[in-house]
Amino acid sequence: MPLPMNHEPLKNFLLLLFCTFYPAWTIAQTDDSLAVAKFYNEALASHEAYENLQYLCSNIGGRLCGSPQSAEAVGWTKSLMERTGADTVYLQEVMVPHWVRGERETAQIMSEVSGTIPVRVCALGGSVGTGRVGLAGQMIEVSHMDALRALGSEVTGKIIFFNRPADQRFVNTFRSYSSAVDQRVSGAAEAALLGAAGVVVRAVTTAFDTVPHTGITRYEKDGKNIPAVAISTKDADILSDLLKKDPELRFFFRTTCGWKPDELSHNVIGEFRGSQFPDEFITIGGHLDSWDLGEGAHDDGAGCIQSIEVLRLFKALNIVPRHTIRVVMFMDEEISQSGSKAYAERALEKKEKHFLALEADRGGFTPFGFSIDVPDSLFNLISKYRVLFEPYGADRFTRGGSGPDIWRLKEQGALVAGLVVDSQRYFDYHHSAKDTFDKVNRRELQLGSAAMAAFVYLLDKDDGLR
Amino acid sequence: MPLPMNHEPLKNFLLLLFCTFYPAWTIAQTDDSLAVAKFYNEALASHEAYENLQYLCSNIGGRLCGSPQSAEAVGWTKSLMERTGADTVYLQEVMVPHWVRGERETAQIMSEVSGTIPVRVCALGGSVGTGRVGLAGQMIEVSHMDALRALGSEVTGKIIFFNRPADQRFVNTFRSYSSAVDQRVSGAAEAALLGAAGVVVRAVTTAFDTVPHTGITRYEKDGKNIPAVAISTKDADILSDLLKKDPELRFFFRTTCGWKPDELSHNVIGEFRGSQFPDEFITIGGHLDSWDLGEGAHDDGAGCIQSIEVLRLFKALNIVPRHTIRVVMFMDEEISQSGSKAYAERALEKKEKHFLALEADRGGFTPFGFSIDVPDSLFNLISKYRVLFEPYGADRFTRGGSGPDIWRLKEQGALVAGLVVDSQRYFDYHHSAKDTFDKVNRRELQLGSAAMAAFVYLLDKDDGLR
Repeated sequence: MPLPMNHEPLKNFLLLLFCTFYPAWTIAQTDDSLAVAKFYNEALASHEAYENLQYLCSNIGGRLCGSPQSAEAVGWTKSLMERTGADTVYLQEVMVPHWVRGERETAQIMSEVSGTIPVRVCALGGSVGTGRVGLAGQMIEVSHMDALRALGSEVTGKIIFFNRPADQRFVNTFRSYSSAVDQRVSGAAEAALLGAAGVVVRAVTTAFDTVPHTGITRYEKDGKNIPAVAISTKDADILSDLLKKDPELRFFFRTTCGWKPDELSHNVIGEFRGSQFPDEFITIGGHLDSWDLGEGAHDDGAGCIQSIEVLRLFKALNIVPRHTIRVVMFMDEEISQSGSKAYAERALEKKEKHFLALEADRGGFTPFGFSIDVPDSLFNLISKYRVLFEPYGADRFTRGGSGPDIWRLKEQGALVAGLVVDSQRYFDYHHSAKDTFDKVNRRELQLGSAAMAAFVYLLDKDDGLR
Repeated sequence: MPLPMNHEPLKNFLLLLFCTFYPAWTIAQTDDSLAVAKFYNEALASHEAYENLQYLCSNIGGRLCGSPQSAEAVGWTKSLMERTGADTVYLQEVMVPHWVRGERETAQIMSEVSGTIPVRVCALGGSVGTGRVGLAGQMIEVSHMDALRALGSEVTGKIIFFNRPADQRFVNTFRSYSSAVDQRVSGAAEAALLGAAGVVVRAVTTAFDTVPHTGITRYEKDGKNIPAVAISTKDADILSDLLKKDPELRFFFRTTCGWKPDELSHNVIGEFRGSQFPDEFITIGGHLDSWDLGEGAHDDGAGCIQSIEVLRLFKALNIVPRHTIRVVMFMDEEISQSGSKAYAERALEKKEKHFLALEADRGGFTPFGFSIDVPDSLFNLISKYRVLFEPYGADRFTRGGSGPDIWRLKEQGALVAGLVVDSQRYFDYHHSAKDTFDKVNRRELQLGSAAMAAFVYLLDKDDGLR
């Protein structure tokens, strides 16, 4: 092959080469690829994880932190990890915020032009309620925070309708989500600063349907707390059209959600003792809490069950890790990440050595690879394993964030990574009544379990990474 | 980077290099990647194809060749292609076989031990019926054709229960499907040779549920035709257990399916005239017929609608191809491929020059790349475009089969390729009542449309491939 000389692309090319293929032939490919194949074979043929997820979703259901269901999930996953063969399973205490939805929300559009039209809304997580009589008011539609601020005092007493759709043009739907989620997270706080009475937010989703999606909204520390609800994307379009026909229309909604005192809850931790470095830890986890509207199937029942399945796969294949594997069900990712903070703080207090942490929190879909947050030199070392994931389509190793529950361990020296999966359907279900067990495909879930197990297996035995 | 000398992997490495990166810097990456991005942006933001698929599935429904629904689909897609801006749309006559399911099938397990248990079955496509009184008989379970043949005369008068599951360990579910589909295709013919009275086949699917899956069964030309039905994977397990408890149990089923005289039907062809080579063709297509139990959403409504969407994308981006693009809705893929045979034969008769053919017939799921069936030298040339599909995750260009409706064009000199998509869910729905519109995700469908359009765009303008 003729290599062009003095050519800029050549440098890029060699750099790419170095990162992509670096020591592909130096690893014991036969043994390693056989081990990886065994993880996949075992995972793809098994129904256990899928049935475990069904139990978590269908029998326990949505698991908002502080709820009785979240407590039930703590007990059940503890017992599941014991049955799966963890050497030790214990609970780590953590105080969690406790928000409750209250009665089913009601809402309607009231227009002299179009009449009264009932519309489905859900309270945003963390929102205060309207009180029993509800809230009615004139409505102003805005697309951006800047547009809101430009309205100034016009906002006073109004209900603000944030209606910017998620940008569908991103291939990665996490980017689409990011393009619109500011409205949900800080719309109420921003509108409150200007004296608005309440906010209605277009569901932050890539779906176009009639289902509202919840998710956290955060008030300013010293700001006023005003009620906030989401409406579906289809209803948002209808509402926007009606507003154009009748700018005087009034919107009514009633929510009885609100905060209760913090509750004692738990992270659930199952340990599989390492043969060589029992006091150095590999944390594998997902978050056990979920929003209350669905069953927390993809977010993040899947990641929890996959993490426990990693333990089962090691046991089934009779592989003992060198480092101690800790499977962790983190509590309260959705509201304040109190579980993951507690986990990281106690690790620091106890001066634990954390070698690796891997999180699955992007849904139980077909895995594409791993997002890895480590120094350059280590990324290149880890990238040599890409070739082993090629037959399974999980060979995209990218530099990027790990996961909401484990990134703090990076400061403590751990290699941190997240399972990356096909994102197309995630935000169809995310934080809504549609996030139910029937949306999970057994094989997709298990491809994720196998990828995680193989990744942990390979890194665990690599002295170059220690 | 130190390259080891006299080292076998080095050769493989350089070969891989050559195939993967060959002239990655020689293509006009800026212009091309911009064009590809435009296809993706337009596709991801549009709802048209998705709504078209909804019409085809929900308003027309399952479209077995020879059925009134297939005729309706011919008329509707013709009109859709006209509306989409094809220069010419015409029908190509083709005589198709006409099999009908008849009345809803009934079946039951009759056991002295377990009592009488009704069970859901569906006739296999192409099967003769049992007649109105149904068929009852003792049952023998087998896993392989060899085991069947070994039974010899024991088979006479019995109902044969083919119960080998699809091998779940393959990552590509088309391989899982292939590991079991012989039972459905030739089980009845093989059992008939030995004098069996009928066959029951475990649904060929990667799902574990209560839904039977149909699909063609083929008799020997001079052999006896015996009735054949499928049962779901869960029911197959139950039946197998009951048979172990009571080997004398009798199975009853009643089907009124059968053959009718061949019908006149049509391929639908829409042409978008090429600017430079109007008499040389790029065929893009899927098959319009489907099995009758579902709505033919993934198999292959998706491929048909994606093909029409390619035309819409070119029009929306104001791009005129150099070669004439022919969007083809092939009739009768499921039974005898009479539509694709007719298309290839007329192309030969008319001495048409076919430059490229691209099929989508693996479901409307997230695309991974293309399976390309061309000579080595051309594969390497085409592979240079992989890099352009990397941002979209559709950069797996593999050597392999193209598609059931276009492979014949290879003999006529065409480059032939198939869109390759995530296969995990395809056989959950395939040939069953579950293959409905609600199983299709708009973004996944549109990522496929965009990948197809970009692939056609790039190859159309490449003189190196002519």
